[in-house]
Amino acid sequence: MSRRYRAIISYDGTDFSGWQVQAGKRTVQGVLEAAIESVVCERIPVFCSGRTDRGVHARGQVVHFDLTEYRPARKLFLAFNARLPEDIRVERIASTRRDFDARFDATGKEYRYIIWNNPVPTPDTRRTTAHVRQKLNVKEMNAAASQLVGRHDFAAFCANPGYERDGTVRTLFKLRVTKRGNQVVISALGEGFLYKMVRSLVGYLIRVGTGELPAKDAAVILASKTRTARVPSAQPQGLFLWRVFYGKLPVSLP
Amino acid sequence: MSRRYRAIISYDGTDFSGWQVQAGKRTVQGVLEAAIESVVCERIPVFCSGRTDRGVHARGQVVHFDLTEYRPARKLFLAFNARLPEDIRVERIASTRRDFDARFDATGKEYRYIIWNNPVPTPDTRRTTAHVRQKLNVKEMNAAASQLVGRHDFAAFCANPGYERDGTVRTLFKLRVTKRGNQVVISALGEGFLYKMVRSLVGYLIRVGTGELPAKDAAVILASKTRTARVPSAQPQGLFLWRVFYGKLPVSLP
Repeated sequence: MSRRYRAIISYDGTDFSGWQVQAGKRTVQGVLEAAIESVVCERIPVFCSGRTDRGVHARGQVVHFDLTEYRPARKLFLAFNARLPEDIRVERIASTRRDFDARFDATGKEYRYIIWNNPVPTPDTRRTTAHVRQKLNVKEMNAAASQLVGRHDFAAFCANPGYERDGTVRTLFKLRVTKRGNQVVISALGEGFLYKMVRSLVGYLIRVGTGELPAKDAAVILASKTRTARVPSAQPQGLFLWRVFYGKLPVSLP
Repeated sequence: MSRRYRAIISYDGTDFSGWQVQAGKRTVQGVLEAAIESVVCERIPVFCSGRTDRGVHARGQVVHFDLTEYRPARKLFLAFNARLPEDIRVERIASTRRDFDARFDATGKEYRYIIWNNPVPTPDTRRTTAHVRQKLNVKEMNAAASQLVGRHDFAAFCANPGYERDGTVRTLFKLRVTKRGNQVVISALGEGFLYKMVRSLVGYLIRVGTGELPAKDAAVILASKTRTARVPSAQPQGLFLWRVFYGKLPVSLP
């Protein structure tokens, strides 16, 4: 009898053309499905909590898939990791209830965007951080970020508002900027995000941090519900899908 | 008139065959000298504070070299970084006194060794951390490390004691293990290190951390002055030459 599995996956997005299978391209979904096929001798579709774009990384992507017969999770864990290339790892795997859905059951997602904030980029972090040369004012960035937290229409902070089937209203539970040494981390926790919403929020916050835009206008831009050139998309290599939540979230709205 | 320059260099060692020029191999020295040659139209030898092995990274390697005529440091900084591949960066460059020597003037060096301590390696850190599956006992590691600090004969913790021209006695100012999340960092600060000494110290401390060797024997192994199989060399990809000191060191011997 068929059995549903849930797995937590990490990947270095640098050498992938994003999540979704595309002919002739190396994608996370394609490589995962090939590894599963080499174990169970059957092509099984894998569903994720949300697609990641080309160059975006994941520390805690969640996926589900069905096998036509039961196999012990521990065996699958070892077999998949033995077959996967080293830029994808299965962190955890368990059999789960038949109707678990990695995407529709998710109650929230945390993304982290990591910036190397120094005049010179550092070679060993170049694949997994975005480089910002000008010194970022973290206090100003947080002043702008706090105006964006809550339930809002985020049309001004997404790539294609017209293509969002479920509209552009979302709840952002947390948007916080922290600095440690030369590293600035932007953490965004929301019930769900529009297409390129995190990179748009980050692109905007970076412009506030460099002083190009004033923090006080964040609410004005949000209220405009219009995406304009003042909100650029930040580069993909700093972005990580950090964690996906099911059930109760570790936050309460302010 | 010739002019001496001093520069701070960072590199991701993954795709280099170590520091030193070797025919047909991509090395840090070779790539640096080629970049300088493309700017000043002359092959200039570059001298570093200490060679790094294949796969070892640097955050603050210090080098010196002489140009046959003066050029503004700012121009060299921009020109070198424009020509260097993105796995090497010049962090800083300045003209310096004629007799400055990156190697012989160094009064101390700090290395850091970064371990990803989790059952599963994480793809985005795989090039710049060593993976240790078994949970490390940091307290035991520090109990062993503290016995190694001071001025000692480190013959038991280097690759080829017989080949060390200046003998095997060195002063280790600091050897400390810290943990933050899944990351364990071993920091070693010494006046200088024998060949593969840091990786030997780390290899030994990892065995203490996993419980294979007791912390209490650190002083006994040190006193044996004999390298044996109980001291393995840790993998190169976790090791960073972090900082080179000239003049007063930020430590005092305990």
